[in-house]
Amino acid sequence: MSHISGVRQARKEKTRQALLDAALELLEGQSLSSLGLREVTRAVGIAPTAFYRHFRSVEDLGVALVEEALGSLHPMIRTTVSTTGDGEERIARAVGLIAGHVDAHPAHVRFIARERHGGVRAVREAIRGQLELFTAEVGEALASDAVSAGWGEEDLLMLAQLYVDQMLMTASLLLEAAAEGGPGERERVAGLAARQLRLISVGRAHWLDLPGGGG
Amino acid sequence: MSHISGVRQARKEKTRQALLDAALELLEGQSLSSLGLREVTRAVGIAPTAFYRHFRSVEDLGVALVEEALGSLHPMIRTTVSTTGDGEERIARAVGLIAGHVDAHPAHVRFIARERHGGVRAVREAIRGQLELFTAEVGEALASDAVSAGWGEEDLLMLAQLYVDQMLMTASLLLEAAAEGGPGERERVAGLAARQLRLISVGRAHWLDLPGGGG
Repeated sequence: MSHISGVRQARKEKTRQALLDAALELLEGQSLSSLGLREVTRAVGIAPTAFYRHFRSVEDLGVALVEEALGSLHPMIRTTVSTTGDGEERIARAVGLIAGHVDAHPAHVRFIARERHGGVRAVREAIRGQLELFTAEVGEALASDAVSAGWGEEDLLMLAQLYVDQMLMTASLLLEAAAEGGPGERERVAGLAARQLRLISVGRAHWLDLPGGGG
Repeated sequence: MSHISGVRQARKEKTRQALLDAALELLEGQSLSSLGLREVTRAVGIAPTAFYRHFRSVEDLGVALVEEALGSLHPMIRTTVSTTGDGEERIARAVGLIAGHVDAHPAHVRFIARERHGGVRAVREAIRGQLELFTAEVGEALASDAVSAGWGEEDLLMLAQLYVDQMLMTASLLLEAAAEGGPGERERVAGLAARQLRLISVGRAHWLDLPGGGG
């Protein structure tokens, strides 16, 4: 790559990121289905037609935001589930990581909570795809625990989805607590989430006691 | 009430309901934060200013939609949790009721899933209030089960919230399955939900085995 095209590439990347950032900010008080392309380009200070150098549509930008919000979480989740020892340690670590993520990226967390059931199908599907990846990754990590001996793959995925759903729910409750809750609300939500994860772990430990091995 | 004012009252009630129905339909492809008062009155065929005879604002109409969508579910949920016998029967009944409700009222279910984290605070708070009522009602019903002996109130509410969250999650997954899933997806989601509720019940049965009684 020549020096000039490298500079151009960097500038293009910067504008693309500015469009993503502006959209995320505009989405604080509205949903993607009502976000206008012109609103976004105006916020960045470029011509509306220049938008198409970066995204095919607002929908396409929304899919890129899903990738930005969730794509980077895969290694973090894998590490948490697979490397921390016993149940209690893992639960504390998971809740701590979620709380830290919500603090660091509140707008991304809000975007996912809102658009998961939002009016833009391509974005809903992108979110669903990322969550299915999380579920598969968590399921794979859970499979290597001693307590998973005798579990079928389908049951492991059922459990993994329960954990992933709880993590998402906790993230959105922590977001609400930060934005609208009274003092102590954040600790209450984190404590509640830890106990719910603990109850699920107890169910996991006794799942094969059921007649027919839980199935 | 005279005959004439009775007729007027009935007509007013009918227009109010028409506004709620029209709004719900318009919300299929957008969110409440972008819904315009004029769009709603145009769909019903009344003057924009006539809107204020029924609602103070679109936000106020949204709060009425929350009441319409969730208010009627309280007796149904109470009955399901308190009158059905053992765990398996209760789980099957709960999943069946959710599936039936999603089939009968898909637009209401979509509205709640979307606006729970949506851009209109009064509506988010109305939804949160209804869900807290559900949690309290479920917690009360669970308290009278034999397996709840020795449980503190806080743990019962923690469990109740886990059940309520799972029911909501199941409702929105069933909605997606109906709208976008392939054949068999509905049964897959219902079966998965039943197994997740079962795992939570197993956790419940063994919660007090934990050192410190789960807490």
